Amino acid sequence: MNAGSIFLWEMLGTAVLILLGNGVVANHVLRKNNGHGGGPLFVNIGWGFAVFAGASIANPSQAHLNPAVTIGLAVAGKTEWSDVPIYILAQMVGAIIGAILCWATYKLQFDDHPVVEETLGVFSTAPQIPNKVWNLVSEIIGTFVLVGWILFTPAAKMGEHGVPTFGNGALGYAGVAFVVLVIGTSLGGPTGYAINPARDLGPRIAYAFILPLKRKADPNWGYSWVPVVGPIIGGVLAALVFLVYPSAA
Amino acid sequence: MNAGSIFLWEMLGTAVLILLGNGVVANHVLRKNNGHGGGPLFVNIGWGFAVFAGASIANPSQAHLNPAVTIGLAVAGKTEWSDVPIYILAQMVGAIIGAILCWATYKLQFDDHPVVEETLGVFSTAPQIPNKVWNLVSEIIGTFVLVGWILFTPAAKMGEHGVPTFGNGALGYAGVAFVVLVIGTSLGGPTGYAINPARDLGPRIAYAFILPLKRKADPNWGYSWVPVVGPIIGGVLAALVFLVYPSAA
Amino acid sequence: MNAGSIFLWEMLGTAVLILLGNGVVANHVLRKNNGHGGGPLFVNIGWGFAVFAGASIANPSQAHLNPAVTIGLAVAGKTEWSDVPIYILAQMVGAIIGAILCWATYKLQFDDHPVVEETLGVFSTAPQIPNKVWNLVSEIIGTFVLVGWILFTPAAKMGEHGVPTFGNGALGYAGVAFVVLVIGTSLGGPTGYAINPARDLGPRIAYAFILPLKRKADPNWGYSWVPVVGPIIGGVLAALVFLVYPSAA
Amino acid sequence: MNAGSIFLWEMLGTAVLILLGNGVVANHVLRKNNGHGGGPLFVNIGWGFAVFAGASIANPSQAHLNPAVTIGLAVAGKTEWSDVPIYILAQMVGAIIGAILCWATYKLQFDDHPVVEETLGVFSTAPQIPNKVWNLVSEIIGTFVLVGWILFTPAAKMGEHGVPTFGNGALGYAGVAFVVLVIGTSLGGPTGYAINPARDLGPRIAYAFILPLKRKADPNWGYSWVPVVGPIIGGVLAALVFLVYPSAA
Repeated sequence: MNAGSIFLWEMLGTAVLILLGNGVVANHVLRKNNGHGGGPLFVNIGWGFAVFAGASIANPSQAHLNPAVTIGLAVAGKTEWSDVPIYILAQMVGAIIGAILCWATYKLQFDDHPVVEETLGVFSTAPQIPNKVWNLVSEIIGTFVLVGWILFTPAAKMGEHGVPTFGNGALGYAGVAFVVLVIGTSLGGPTGYAINPARDLGPRIAYAFILPLKRKADPNWGYSWVPVVGPIIGGVLAALVFLVYPSAA
Repeated sequence: MNAGSIFLWEMLGTAVLILLGNGVVANHVLRKNNGHGGGPLFVNIGWGFAVFAGASIANPSQAHLNPAVTIGLAVAGKTEWSDVPIYILAQMVGAIIGAILCWATYKLQFDDHPVVEETLGVFSTAPQIPNKVWNLVSEIIGTFVLVGWILFTPAAKMGEHGVPTFGNGALGYAGVAFVVLVIGTSLGGPTGYAINPARDLGPRIAYAFILPLKRKADPNWGYSWVPVVGPIIGGVLAALVFLVYPSAA
Repeated sequence: MNAGSIFLWEMLGTAVLILLGNGVVANHVLRKNNGHGGGPLFVNIGWGFAVFAGASIANPSQAHLNPAVTIGLAVAGKTEWSDVPIYILAQMVGAIIGAILCWATYKLQFDDHPVVEETLGVFSTAPQIPNKVWNLVSEIIGTFVLVGWILFTPAAKMGEHGVPTFGNGALGYAGVAFVVLVIGTSLGGPTGYAINPARDLGPRIAYAFILPLKRKADPNWGYSWVPVVGPIIGGVLAALVFLVYPSAA
Repeated sequence: MNAGSIFLWEMLGTAVLILLGNGVVANHVLRKNNGHGGGPLFVNIGWGFAVFAGASIANPSQAHLNPAVTIGLAVAGKTEWSDVPIYILAQMVGAIIGAILCWATYKLQFDDHPVVEETLGVFSTAPQIPNKVWNLVSEIIGTFVLVGWILFTPAAKMGEHGVPTFGNGALGYAGVAFVVLVIGTSLGGPTGYAINPARDLGPRIAYAFILPLKRKADPNWGYSWVPVVGPIIGGVLAALVFLVYPSAA
């Protein structure tokens, strides 16, 4: 697939992912919403099926939607390194678009909300107990499970470039949705499972520089590199384990 | 498929969809119910699998169940414009039948319920913060995701008229159920995600003119056009993006 | 399949269904349980996947697990009338075994529980607002959706006797599990969605005559015919609609 | 598959299973977590899809991940007895690794937590009402359903050694995830559904001897044999019933 098509599909899929993923947090956090106070499972299910929706749509470009997946697949020899920049650029642009669409959906609720600090949490993650080393560990382990599952699930079909595709009709991406759901329930406690640099940095940029919110929280740039670097390390580690593991055959 | 058969399958599928979708709200809202206070995830899961049940049944007519889907598919060139009126008529009749069946299931609970305003909410949506422009935006974005997913999911099989069918055995429509579930968790906060003109207007008509409720709330006709016009705009926008996007092949 | 094999598979599948279905209510209702107070969605998901587990196991006998399904399929011409008695007998025996296994699993909790009336609710349904006519209506509509879905889902494969089987690998019965889940969330409010005579009467018999509970509630025989007759009517109505509907082809 | 490969796949899959399964309990129990107080359904869904993630990865070794499954399959003639020790050793090692990774993910939360007794519960099960006979019964019945489902689901494909594999693309193990989910909701009340000796004993060993927690609860060795012996009995019983049942064909 040429670079322009990769860009268009990754951008569209990531925009849908972030619209729906940020949206479930907005619905849970902001008052005067039908989903206000929906709880942890509500949020985790929303993010899980956000991946399902976005990934199904981006199937033509192999549905990475995540720089940690793209880099992990490149290390594992399953994505061309020359395609990596276009994937990541598309994911960042898509994430920013998704954050803007989330804001538009909940514009009235943002205007109404009294606690400014909570509005950053709709878009980007923050640690429950700040400690950069251990926050990084949490993000590394979470992303290791995500990228490891994608690489190790042996029954996945191999598509273009040898990347696993789960394009088993309309349901193929339910598997990765289930994995993201369980990463949320099981590993998302300490840092909010960014597990995706674009998912965290794109909306943070949108929040800081683009969204016309009346008041804003500090974008917390001091923490912002953790959910970028942690997922990349986790994805690379998963790829390295994959490379040294015996063939499943 | 001839017009009579389209009518019968769409009517039956939409009736099941609305019976189950209105039913989960009745169970959650009305007191003296096993599901009373079930919460947002309970309601969103109910609506999601209501689509699964109704769409599986209406597979012979491609399971639109929604005028915004029908019009979006027509704009995308995947449904004959001459079939559009029969689809929409069937969806409206089915939605009214479904609302009546929901009332019959919960007849004793409706008689018992003390807050008349809540009984309209069982059948039709209302905004949490009334503002017609931004409420419209919420409905447009939600329906864009629904119709966009149907059009863009490339692995979907193409059936009669080139419309995507998800008729992958008994499970094919789980995909669209997952998407409706996540639209609910993630975009349903401000307006209750009508995302379907028949889903909102049909039960509103039933509520206002047909159901033998002892007392009724005002049917809120002033808002009633928003969940009709918004979804149609969202469906058409999704079709236009689909038409300008490159082929997935 | 011969009568003995039908008996063995239906008995085993129904026992697993009732063990898991009664079990989720026990977990939710009885104190000193990890699932105590789990809520409506917890209970509905438990019952939904109880059907998944039991039906997957009983696939060789077409996994009816429910006299209303058996009779509905017979009216629709998809099960031999001569097999109907053996199906129903096996379902009743299996339901009683399942109720006994549920009691054994929660024996310590039953001994500990202070409210005797709640222990009948673990095994059999009761109306939230007693009114035999409208309770019957609720059961008829719920079972109509279940049996109608089984009959109308056109993509279902036809197995022995022309009965639809959903034996699509290990996942085929997820479809019927989703439908039972949504019947629970959406139609289970007023009467607890027996939608299955064996599911309600078998455990009621076990409760009244077999289980060694220290104290028991009244088995409520006056209501016990409603969750038997209602589901049978609903299943027959679904079959009649199926017979008059045009072919999906 | 040779012993070394079995070891590597079972170890990896079990480590992922325990990381995610212990993780959801940590998220629910320990304060200053996004999932704190997530509730029973949250925990049960986490464990269910923990099995999905781990089993998908371990598909090359048939994804036992559980000594009760391995022994049950051996009794049923579907796994070589000579492979049983390597399976169990790998499962134990994997479970210990998974518990360590869970501790690393939640290190800050463990340090912060004030109630030392709750930290054992993250890793290993305990009965709600201690009574070794009836606790054993609960574990036997829960494991009987798990191993019985694996053996009896007739549509499962047979893989190497005649063991059923559910390797239906990326989604095949959703079936066993649904079964573990429903065992949790329906049979997990009294003892926390260990249903897997490695799942309980491995993390208990890690807790007692390896994890650098500041304070620890008593590892409760007096109870520790129940979630080992109970599941093995349940798995063997399921295999014996399977052997005397008629063929599904």
